[in-house]
Amino acid sequence: MEVTRKNFKDCLSSMNCAIEEADFLAIDGEFSGISDGPNVSALTNGLDTPEERYAKLKKHSMDFLLFQFGLCAFKYDPTASKYIVKCFNFYVFPKPFNRASPDIKFICQSSSIDFLASQGFDFNKVFCHGIPYLNQEEEARVRELTEERRNQQANGAANGAAYSSPFCTVPANVPEEHKDFLSQIMFQRKLIYQTLNWKFPKGIHVETVETKSKGRFIQVSKVDNDERKRRERQKLEKEQEELNDAVGFSRVIHAISKSGKLVVGHNMLLDVMHTIHQFYCPLPQDLQDFKDLTMSVFPRLLDTKLMSSTQPFKDKIPITSLAELEKRLKGAPFQSPNVETAEGFPRYDTAQEQLHEAGYDAYITGLCFISMANYLGSFLSPPNTNILPHSKLVEPFVNKLYLMRITDIPYLNMTGPDLQPQRDHVLYVTFPKEWKTSDLYQLFSAFGNIQVSWIDNTSAFVSLSQTDQVQIAMNTSRYAESYRIQTYAEYRRGRQQEKDIPSQP
Amino acid sequence: MEVTRKNFKDCLSSMNCAIEEADFLAIDGEFSGISDGPNVSALTNGLDTPEERYAKLKKHSMDFLLFQFGLCAFKYDPTASKYIVKCFNFYVFPKPFNRASPDIKFICQSSSIDFLASQGFDFNKVFCHGIPYLNQEEEARVRELTEERRNQQANGAANGAAYSSPFCTVPANVPEEHKDFLSQIMFQRKLIYQTLNWKFPKGIHVETVETKSKGRFIQVSKVDNDERKRRERQKLEKEQEELNDAVGFSRVIHAISKSGKLVVGHNMLLDVMHTIHQFYCPLPQDLQDFKDLTMSVFPRLLDTKLMSSTQPFKDKIPITSLAELEKRLKGAPFQSPNVETAEGFPRYDTAQEQLHEAGYDAYITGLCFISMANYLGSFLSPPNTNILPHSKLVEPFVNKLYLMRITDIPYLNMTGPDLQPQRDHVLYVTFPKEWKTSDLYQLFSAFGNIQVSWIDNTSAFVSLSQTDQVQIAMNTSRYAESYRIQTYAEYRRGRQQEKDIPSQP
Ligand SMILES: Nc1nc2c(ncn2[C@@H]2O[C@H](COP(=O)(O)OP(=O)(O)O)[C@@H](O)[C@H]2O)c(=O)[nH]1
Ligand SMILES: Nc1nc2c(ncn2[C@@H]2O[C@H](COP(=O)(O)OP(=O)(O)O)[C@@H](O)[C@H]2O)c(=O)[nH]1
Repeated sequence: MEVTRKNFKDCLSSMNCAIEEADFLAIDGEFSGISDGPNVSALTNGLDTPEERYAKLKKHSMDFLLFQFGLCAFKYDPTASKYIVKCFNFYVFPKPFNRASPDIKFICQSSSIDFLASQGFDFNKVFCHGIPYLNQEEEARVRELTEERRNQQANGAANGAAYSSPFCTVPANVPEEHKDFLSQIMFQRKLIYQTLNWKFPKGIHVETVETKSKGRFIQVSKVDNDERKRRERQKLEKEQEELNDAVGFSRVIHAISKSGKLVVGHNMLLDVMHTIHQFYCPLPQDLQDFKDLTMSVFPRLLDTKLMSSTQPFKDKIPITSLAELEKRLKGAPFQSPNVETAEGFPRYDTAQEQLHEAGYDAYITGLCFISMANYLGSFLSPPNTNILPHSKLVEPFVNKLYLMRITDIPYLNMTGPDLQPQRDHVLYVTFPKEWKTSDLYQLFSAFGNIQVSWIDNTSAFVSLSQTDQVQIAMNTSRYAESYRIQTYAEYRRGRQQEKDIPSQP
Repeated sequence: MEVTRKNFKDCLSSMNCAIEEADFLAIDGEFSGISDGPNVSALTNGLDTPEERYAKLKKHSMDFLLFQFGLCAFKYDPTASKYIVKCFNFYVFPKPFNRASPDIKFICQSSSIDFLASQGFDFNKVFCHGIPYLNQEEEARVRELTEERRNQQANGAANGAAYSSPFCTVPANVPEEHKDFLSQIMFQRKLIYQTLNWKFPKGIHVETVETKSKGRFIQVSKVDNDERKRRERQKLEKEQEELNDAVGFSRVIHAISKSGKLVVGHNMLLDVMHTIHQFYCPLPQDLQDFKDLTMSVFPRLLDTKLMSSTQPFKDKIPITSLAELEKRLKGAPFQSPNVETAEGFPRYDTAQEQLHEAGYDAYITGLCFISMANYLGSFLSPPNTNILPHSKLVEPFVNKLYLMRITDIPYLNMTGPDLQPQRDHVLYVTFPKEWKTSDLYQLFSAFGNIQVSWIDNTSAFVSLSQTDQVQIAMNTSRYAESYRIQTYAEYRRGRQQEKDIPSQP
């Protein structure tokens, strides 16, 4: 189901119900770009530590906008032995609510935009009808403001501001020439409000009314006490509704979080980082803090890219990109899962791929998960090909997020320390920027097969095939002038020192 | 006429002809945002120097994208005493041509995007069908590459790369898993090319052909010398065309520049800065260099906002925003100009405003210019209400760009030094961030009317109504602890010193 600002409120209860009854949820996000700094290859060095990778993604990816969010709720129907799925494809955009609301800036990367455009992505739906949102801090601020206003009103404080909603619809762009005029008007309004409140503290109700043609006037009505209270209650309700509207799409994420359900994604680290960054709070500096925060928001995550590149799947699945994975899992020894679209929801057809629509990607991610989970059941005796998300068999894959292109650390362990592979066979080499891969091959030609992981244009990691060659390489490099070699351990110590003693400002 | 990537090439000759025959051109740009730092009020301080304003706009506005460009060519028809207008509304987007081309990142400001969305702006047209472009440096690089390839070919250099276009259409996103495979294929291709060239230096023609289904194969044909030359010529022509396609929208700006025609805009400083930045080169640090560069690209500029806020218009035009100006100039003592849309061009209707479409804004900017120019003629004796752009009467308004919200420097003088108004009555005040405007009014209550120009939340300029009060204010502030006052001259000297002796890194 496609959800924009226009039908968001109507979809909310159906969305809440879908989450509530689901056995697991699948998600996917589309972003306005990937890296605002180095290209993706340089962003994802094969020998990054988890801390480094997290720091790079945080630094170079978070200023893009997550503008489409796919959510599919899969519910198992045991009588029919099949899943019933409800898919939502949300368009998201930080439309400023009023002059006081934050004016979000986000980056677009032309290659990403062009790629989405070539896939038929509808940018007008995002920018014209995207659902707004507030993060936790913004929500708290608006809540406070509303609260304050309520108290003022309760205390009869005669403050003009007390009578205008925090979401007043005054246009955001006031031409310079009108500003003086407007502030005069605003001052006059305030005076009228104050005087009326002071002269008639009880017997009247004062309200700003807006006509269809955007004209605004002050409506003064004589009311008795009951009527006044009724109107004030109405007003509070309206304010509450406006607050909910402003929180907007964040309510979807809150609902997912509150449900505590298993959340499945494909190569989902960036999706998770963006989701938390955009709808909760800026990401913490420290990786451990990020893990703790993430686990408090999404207590059970599963990454199908990690699952498919781990045994017993690894040998049977040569290519783990989402599209290839989905195709592979249709054939033996796997089985296409038995999934039916819930009534009233539009059906996705996997034969006619709609890849890179977040809702569709979330859908086939869910399918992949079910196929792989069921396959795990084939090892039971007797075999059971209906393995549900809460099964013990799934547990080894939970809360491990795929780390792209790191050669020796397959995943980020969300609930404990990360793997610390030996890197004794790795050298850190610096050289003139004119060097090419071939120069490195030549330099290390005596040491057999090497593997090069470029860091930037004057440095790279070189992995030797045998650790005992490291010392030889170090010795021969001692008198070299054009390049320099460090062991991986020396390199790490150097980096750590840089961190401990930051260079003077 | 709406111009996108789809019809750009077909429009080029009509656009060139329109520029060639025009008496003047009107332009307008739409951007993805205005300021990525301070809000617009803080960006445009009322007491900025021209240098400061330029530096701020350069720093905080140039990372947005100019994605719609309006160009209207007005040609005077003396027999009918009327203008014939041809309007173009270009959609512009830096679609990457191939893997080697720059992957532009640009910022979007949600308030600007939301504003354009509310005006019915079509973002899909920009992102899916926007015309690409190269700036001068990028164009030069591609030209060099093409040249190199040509020379290699002429010398019969047997290099595989020599046979693939610099705009090869290999998809930019190669999944990690396929990279090895691809580089193998590429190596094989290279081998085949080299071997063929070496074995049959003359008698064959080798070419990569792409099928409709994106399959690629190598086509080897036996050809005689004439045929080979013909094919090579064809190839060169194709390369030239691809180069032109890549330069894309920049060709429009080059054509405007080459024509040397008067270019009219409304509040056009940002338009000019963006145009040069995006289609020529990064903006220079120094304001004087910017002026020189601008004059070399657009030798005659006229800003209708500056014109309308200068005598003899100033007193008659209370509001100089484009929409208000256009309305005002329809009434006495002004006259709506006699303008007709050229055949084959869609007509804009000023009764049904399409404001904030760049083409429409350029159109009414042109109308405003004609009305105001003609009004100047009413002071001649005998009056002449057909004043053309090259008239002496227009000259005082040429090459002066409106400076928004600077109280005492109305314009940037593009062809000489800027005005240096006395600011002896101005104080620079610093204070705790809790202060409000009212605190400043209170502080200076003894000095009559003051004017406050906020710099940031701990500093502001305060203009006193009389210069002789400055010394008194300075004296009374001597022992103050919470705030500090400097004269404007002291403040400037301090800033200059900061510039001369940059703080140690
Ligand atoms: N000096 C030099 N630097 C390179 C070379 N290849 C890659 N690099 C650097 O390493 C970074 C990552 O390169 P790579 O992983 O190959 O990804 P790519 O940038 O997509 O080709 C690049 O951005 C360069 O800074 C090379 O041949 N010579
Ligand atoms: N401390 C303080 N700073 C202010 C106040 N008003 C404005 N500023 C600062 O001055 C900047 C420009 O303010 P202004 O020109 O009024 O534009 P605005 O930001 O659109 O209201 C703001 O971003 C603030 O940093 C005030 O009352 N107190």
